Amino acid sequence: MSGRPFAVGDRVLLLDRKDRRYLVTLIDGGAFHSHAGFFHHADLIGQDEGCQVRTTGGAAYIAIRPTLADFVLKMPRGAQVIYPKDLGAILLLADIFPGARVLEAGVGSGALSMTLVRAGAHVTGYEIRPDFAARAQENVLAMLGADDSARFSVTERDIYEGIDETGLDRILLDLPEPWRVVKHAASALAPGGILLAYLPTIIQVAQLREALVDSPFAMAETLEVLHRGWHVEGQSVRPDHRMVAHTGFLTTARLIQAS
Amino acid sequence: MSGRPFAVGDRVLLLDRKDRRYLVTLIDGGAFHSHAGFFHHADLIGQDEGCQVRTTGGAAYIAIRPTLADFVLKMPRGAQVIYPKDLGAILLLADIFPGARVLEAGVGSGALSMTLVRAGAHVTGYEIRPDFAARAQENVLAMLGADDSARFSVTERDIYEGIDETGLDRILLDLPEPWRVVKHAASALAPGGILLAYLPTIIQVAQLREALVDSPFAMAETLEVLHRGWHVEGQSVRPDHRMVAHTGFLTTARLIQAS
Amino acid sequence: MSGRPFAVGDRVLLLDRKDRRYLVTLIDGGAFHSHAGFFHHADLIGQDEGCQVRTTGGAAYIAIRPTLADFVLKMPRGAQVIYPKDLGAILLLADIFPGARVLEAGVGSGALSMTLVRAGAHVTGYEIRPDFAARAQENVLAMLGADDSARFSVTERDIYEGIDETGLDRILLDLPEPWRVVKHAASALAPGGILLAYLPTIIQVAQLREALVDSPFAMAETLEVLHRGWHVEGQSVRPDHRMVAHTGFLTTARLIQAS
Amino acid sequence: MSGRPFAVGDRVLLLDRKDRRYLVTLIDGGAFHSHAGFFHHADLIGQDEGCQVRTTGGAAYIAIRPTLADFVLKMPRGAQVIYPKDLGAILLLADIFPGARVLEAGVGSGALSMTLVRAGAHVTGYEIRPDFAARAQENVLAMLGADDSARFSVTERDIYEGIDETGLDRILLDLPEPWRVVKHAASALAPGGILLAYLPTIIQVAQLREALVDSPFAMAETLEVLHRGWHVEGQSVRPDHRMVAHTGFLTTARLIQAS
Repeated sequence: MSGRPFAVGDRVLLLDRKDRRYLVTLIDGGAFHSHAGFFHHADLIGQDEGCQVRTTGGAAYIAIRPTLADFVLKMPRGAQVIYPKDLGAILLLADIFPGARVLEAGVGSGALSMTLVRAGAHVTGYEIRPDFAARAQENVLAMLGADDSARFSVTERDIYEGIDETGLDRILLDLPEPWRVVKHAASALAPGGILLAYLPTIIQVAQLREALVDSPFAMAETLEVLHRGWHVEGQSVRPDHRMVAHTGFLTTARLIQAS
Repeated sequence: MSGRPFAVGDRVLLLDRKDRRYLVTLIDGGAFHSHAGFFHHADLIGQDEGCQVRTTGGAAYIAIRPTLADFVLKMPRGAQVIYPKDLGAILLLADIFPGARVLEAGVGSGALSMTLVRAGAHVTGYEIRPDFAARAQENVLAMLGADDSARFSVTERDIYEGIDETGLDRILLDLPEPWRVVKHAASALAPGGILLAYLPTIIQVAQLREALVDSPFAMAETLEVLHRGWHVEGQSVRPDHRMVAHTGFLTTARLIQAS
Repeated sequence: MSGRPFAVGDRVLLLDRKDRRYLVTLIDGGAFHSHAGFFHHADLIGQDEGCQVRTTGGAAYIAIRPTLADFVLKMPRGAQVIYPKDLGAILLLADIFPGARVLEAGVGSGALSMTLVRAGAHVTGYEIRPDFAARAQENVLAMLGADDSARFSVTERDIYEGIDETGLDRILLDLPEPWRVVKHAASALAPGGILLAYLPTIIQVAQLREALVDSPFAMAETLEVLHRGWHVEGQSVRPDHRMVAHTGFLTTARLIQAS
Repeated sequence: MSGRPFAVGDRVLLLDRKDRRYLVTLIDGGAFHSHAGFFHHADLIGQDEGCQVRTTGGAAYIAIRPTLADFVLKMPRGAQVIYPKDLGAILLLADIFPGARVLEAGVGSGALSMTLVRAGAHVTGYEIRPDFAARAQENVLAMLGADDSARFSVTERDIYEGIDETGLDRILLDLPEPWRVVKHAASALAPGGILLAYLPTIIQVAQLREALVDSPFAMAETLEVLHRGWHVEGQSVRPDHRMVAHTGFLTTARLIQAS
């Protein structure tokens, strides 16, 4: 993906001098407007990543392809997204592997979906809000292209009412009452399958863990992921003064008895 | 992968009542010995994941396929491994995508290698210690099988002396003096490519960041990953009393000007 | 206190080469026994703090007066103590000032009591277990001496049944069901008074905070105190590999309406 | 201190509905002006703490005496203050006791000074900036009153040039190059005395720790203090989304050999 010059249709991340970031899709005849004039998309087309471009008013931007994390933070979203710090952890906690059959419920804007699909999984999404479902599909397509996106589909349905699929490898939940899914998940997962839930409050975690106790799931674990950024500039080496202290709790469990 | 009964050659994770974990490879005629007698591997072969097995002395074990994280923590290792908490973060920070051409220097026991390969990358490893190189290759093969492992190769060489590859997408470093690699990396990476270094001490981080300042790399960032585990058992809902407070610092930067 | 030579009756902290620590009270004719012989207390008496002493077998110890934190970690205890990291925070959160009239319920081994008394408060302790009450009084006396300890008294009683005192400045609770004390505390505190509770689980915190909502208390706040230790030795500058990740949650509130 | 009605000269903390806080000194004929009209200080005088007052435009405020922590965050300051989370930790780490003879260098706005004095210490401040020295003295007087403030004095001098005092119990440093004070501190402290330094960057910490290695100080320790706030409101129980991730590193050491 790196090493290819910018072309029409590419997503480009623009960074200004103050490290503010803008996500742009290159189009024929397009222009990027800032407080200090504009530049034509044509100025970037054919250029290598990492090139610099200037607006008519002299503001300089570095142009680079967005990482998945950049894209997640800048893509159109209706729902709160799962942050990159949690996405990375989920790949390991839910042990996502190529070819894994994954059910994701509560796809939101598709941040987790694109992470799973890119890691090689076949992802079926359940989403009760049609606007979210549509946006997730657009975002996954925009980030991953048509080929990879073919491993992602979303259905507009309520997972609390049941799961059609069986023999799934993993079920990932980003919804308010995952304890209502435990029973369905026990039937839908293959033996050894992993259930993972992302939850904003510890009260929800306690309720989920309670439901897991009387279930065929074992090895239940809950953790939080914290990223502590550092300011490193000459002699000024210290943690950042502020940090994101909370997004959600991640709970996992494995199916150990056939239901 | 889930859903398939245990067969000869499979890796199996055994959990006892106290959540102690043992990694076993099933072999014809094999047996697992504990303080309370033994059981035959044959007792597991043909069984589903999540089944329970008992030793002659009555000790019960749950048998399950290890996740990559389980495997990393239990596999044979000569060097300190990069922990699962950092492996997940690296996938996002280094933006590993299918087909990415990745150079990894300091492969150690192969924990990072297998994570990258599983995520779809083509990984070339540089490792100065032949014993580490050999073990890494064995571990990757054991975890991922022959097909995926074909995307991994290790050369016994010193990256401080230079990099042969060009047009790389990512370079990942787990070695003591990554600042000696910055210049080589600037030539070997494609524009927009990402350099990531894992470093145990903040003094090393400061030295690397210094080297990045006068380089064609930009967007340098350093962070630490912390996983805070929770104890959730009925009314007893609280963080674990102790946690891993440090493994290493992760520093990333992107190549923005052709060197 | 510093600068005075060791005398009979003094508490002394002994540190060996491996930084193991022993708390000793100097007595006439006393001796300290180790795996490598012994030394006589008389060897320390009359010496300055920070001196070195050797056992008959050649093991060297540095002798120093214990800080309050050292004492808390080494003193005889029946109950779990509140850790120094929390004691310091409590002094600020509960805004302990000289002459403050403080009620402390659940005195345990007296760690918090001695911290409050040393900061100048007049402390009345409620403790239902007579053995704890006795030990707390001994520990406070041992750490602070007779003069300061005169500002501390313990009664064997159950605070859930009510509080006799009125016009208190602060009430500090280290007991399982502080929500049962909210009503009593509202009557016992002077206007503007502070209630503080130390609680091991977040479920207890939620229940306390619920009780505070329908009460004459306001400005309720809950936090955790984390101390992250660093290993600093030449070039090896990094956080400690492990840390205490949890002891308890601290919740405070202020009385804003006369009950 | 609690339980006494408001009087002229009192500091009052005003909280509005959105928990914004204002520090006011009650004066004869004074008024508090807001976006929604004003109220007269006379409306508060004679009232109990925790009372409510309304402006002419109907904005309601709770009036309460500031804690030391409230005062530190709202008092007039020229320099960056040491935060309450660190002040509490310092009381324990530096083992501040009543009557302790403490030297504080770099008094800044007096936040640490007032904390030490309130804990019973006799504090001599060294401060090179006369404006800081003056403000610190005003702030200590404002927070603690004339009696306690008598235990605090500031001299305008540079501690890098030496320390006049001897037999000190503790030396606390909030200045950029504490390693230049180590030698002076070794002469000025009594045996067993404690040196504590507050430093914003880890590079400074490394340099200080280096200086302590070849010194008569031992038991050197460095840590960071983190306060993690919780949002607790009905079912919404979770850590705050953002937190203060860094202020400074605290390093302590004890004098063990006469210099």
